[in-house]
Amino acid sequence: MSVTAASGFAAAGVVAGLKASGRRDLALVRNLGPLNAAAAVFTTNRCKANPVLWSQQVMQDGVVSAIVLNSGGANCYTGSQGFQVTHATAEAVATELGVSAGDVLVCSTGLIGEQLPLDKLVAGVTTAANALARDAGLGAAEAIMTTDTRAKEAQFRSPNGWTVGGMAKGAGMLAPGLATMLVVVTTDAVLTSGRLDAALRRATRVTFDRLDSDGCMSTNDTVALLASGASGVEPGDEEFALALTAVCRDLAEQLQADAEGASHDIAIEVVNAASEDDAVVVGRAVSRSNLFKAAIFGNDPNWGRVLAAVGTTDAEFDPYGIDVAINGVQVCTSGEPDQPRDLVDLTPRAVHVLIDLHAGDETATILTNDLTHDYVHENSAYAS
Amino acid sequence: MSVTAASGFAAAGVVAGLKASGRRDLALVRNLGPLNAAAAVFTTNRCKANPVLWSQQVMQDGVVSAIVLNSGGANCYTGSQGFQVTHATAEAVATELGVSAGDVLVCSTGLIGEQLPLDKLVAGVTTAANALARDAGLGAAEAIMTTDTRAKEAQFRSPNGWTVGGMAKGAGMLAPGLATMLVVVTTDAVLTSGRLDAALRRATRVTFDRLDSDGCMSTNDTVALLASGASGVEPGDEEFALALTAVCRDLAEQLQADAEGASHDIAIEVVNAASEDDAVVVGRAVSRSNLFKAAIFGNDPNWGRVLAAVGTTDAEFDPYGIDVAINGVQVCTSGEPDQPRDLVDLTPRAVHVLIDLHAGDETATILTNDLTHDYVHENSAYAS
Repeated sequence: MSVTAASGFAAAGVVAGLKASGRRDLALVRNLGPLNAAAAVFTTNRCKANPVLWSQQVMQDGVVSAIVLNSGGANCYTGSQGFQVTHATAEAVATELGVSAGDVLVCSTGLIGEQLPLDKLVAGVTTAANALARDAGLGAAEAIMTTDTRAKEAQFRSPNGWTVGGMAKGAGMLAPGLATMLVVVTTDAVLTSGRLDAALRRATRVTFDRLDSDGCMSTNDTVALLASGASGVEPGDEEFALALTAVCRDLAEQLQADAEGASHDIAIEVVNAASEDDAVVVGRAVSRSNLFKAAIFGNDPNWGRVLAAVGTTDAEFDPYGIDVAINGVQVCTSGEPDQPRDLVDLTPRAVHVLIDLHAGDETATILTNDLTHDYVHENSAYAS
Repeated sequence: MSVTAASGFAAAGVVAGLKASGRRDLALVRNLGPLNAAAAVFTTNRCKANPVLWSQQVMQDGVVSAIVLNSGGANCYTGSQGFQVTHATAEAVATELGVSAGDVLVCSTGLIGEQLPLDKLVAGVTTAANALARDAGLGAAEAIMTTDTRAKEAQFRSPNGWTVGGMAKGAGMLAPGLATMLVVVTTDAVLTSGRLDAALRRATRVTFDRLDSDGCMSTNDTVALLASGASGVEPGDEEFALALTAVCRDLAEQLQADAEGASHDIAIEVVNAASEDDAVVVGRAVSRSNLFKAAIFGNDPNWGRVLAAVGTTDAEFDPYGIDVAINGVQVCTSGEPDQPRDLVDLTPRAVHVLIDLHAGDETATILTNDLTHDYVHENSAYAS
């Protein structure tokens, strides 16, 4: 159910003919109300795709009636022609659904620098509008996949009568600056756009923002949160933020688990940092070390590569007072070898790297993946 | 001849038994004078190896009589025992050559977090001291190799009677913060340590500092410059800096050409930047995009990945006013597709990416490599 788990939403995933594979490539999600409040966060990449430029304008008033998403092309660096395609897509949705084009979010994903065929998009919108259904959440989640190998869905049902559900896509270019890839989360809770915005920023800061699969920030990242109010229940800020964060974390972990070519899911937990920012900076530096990531692929607990990455940061720590444990084995204490690295078992897919900075009491965990032959293969051959 | 191309220097490269392969693994370079002036730059990684901590002390007075270098172990994160090994190695050199241990630089390269065997090092120093010769520059260059596939040497002979020569090693962890890997440059020009230092910083800033093969900064990077004064000629600052820069650039390009697993040598030239710093930041961002690097491996001129990386920087530019050319084909003008990407030929090893920011008149070129299966293989299997 995912994006249609909450009441007040219908979705569709159809074949518009944008993907050479002939698979579903256009998704539509409609908010049936009674509310149409929304919040969204976008990539912080300065090179933003046309749908991001459009959707930022749509979000000005916090009102969203529908969101249309396509795979098969990012519509980024396609100039004014590309912006016209985005605008015309929103207009097509508006016409089909009888809403304002200014209340239609647009998201695109795929290759940068190629024009999308407007005729196929418009025809696809008509097909999707006619296919809108309460049980079509999975089809919509499938329609936004690119190199993803499986659809990503998550939901949370509150005992108080409201629900949060969502879908996501993302496989490469997976290092969000604010949001990651395309994510749509819906709820039937009664909330204003201002409260949705606060909850969404709180949730993405500790979920999608801490996923750094390959260090490459997309031009199209969008996370949209739509509220229908159909449950008639108004949750408290705290309970809603916790539910939303749980759904976002679930989706972020699904993105990590399906990252292009990865054979390990690595959690880099930095503890006893002087600040949360320091913990994030240190974790991110390790997550971006190709040497560390290649070592994990080779099941090599090369903790020297962890510390070499930590040492490039300006976080507060004594370079010779750091401890490192990998999958529960303390391989380095105060910057000196401790337990033999042979004791570390890296055969499971899940890897836990614990870095103790001994500089305070803040913590953060960055999620990343290893650097594999399959990653190189997919990203040297991928052009669709 | 390389490190012994300049008069007043002798060198040796011997087998100390540190490498499992049984190859040469200890190099010694002696300055025979009459001068013993020197300058050096070291890694800016805060996690510095023991030989770097030692050598920074040695450089305080700008006097260096000899430099000893070993492969087979980085002596980094080995604690006080590791520092004692570095100190004892310098003492052994001092005893053999009749110089002060405080005038002996020590460099190490190899795996982090393993102790070096002091007995083998001391015996190797004795062997090397007895083998010192004017024609042993190549043997010394071979002794500092790790995953390098060939020795790196360069020289410049001034028509005015003085010479600059050098050797280098470096294959992985190749993204210097100030200097890269192990480099020893010698000259017989008559220069003070202060003038050597100024020339060295000027040369490394535009050569080793602009090499970013894999984004990973080493804990052991050292570039040392020794002057014997044996030519009796005192060059001007400008002519010496130009000669030194030429030798450093030659060595940096050799490091790039032999980078682990690389199949392309990529020059990212950023032009019309508002400042030189902006040009460097933009070039470095592109050089660290795994997606861009994997595309080049696949001979795919994916310029969208170039702009997606540019967009993550805070350099001054209009995101929609950037031009990109790859190997002479203008694939993007003002952020829109220009020439078809099929026209780009990426089969040669050399790749030139030209990024025009249209924001000023400063320029910089960053040298990098592609991301290949061989890079992943070498760095998932490498533990020697």
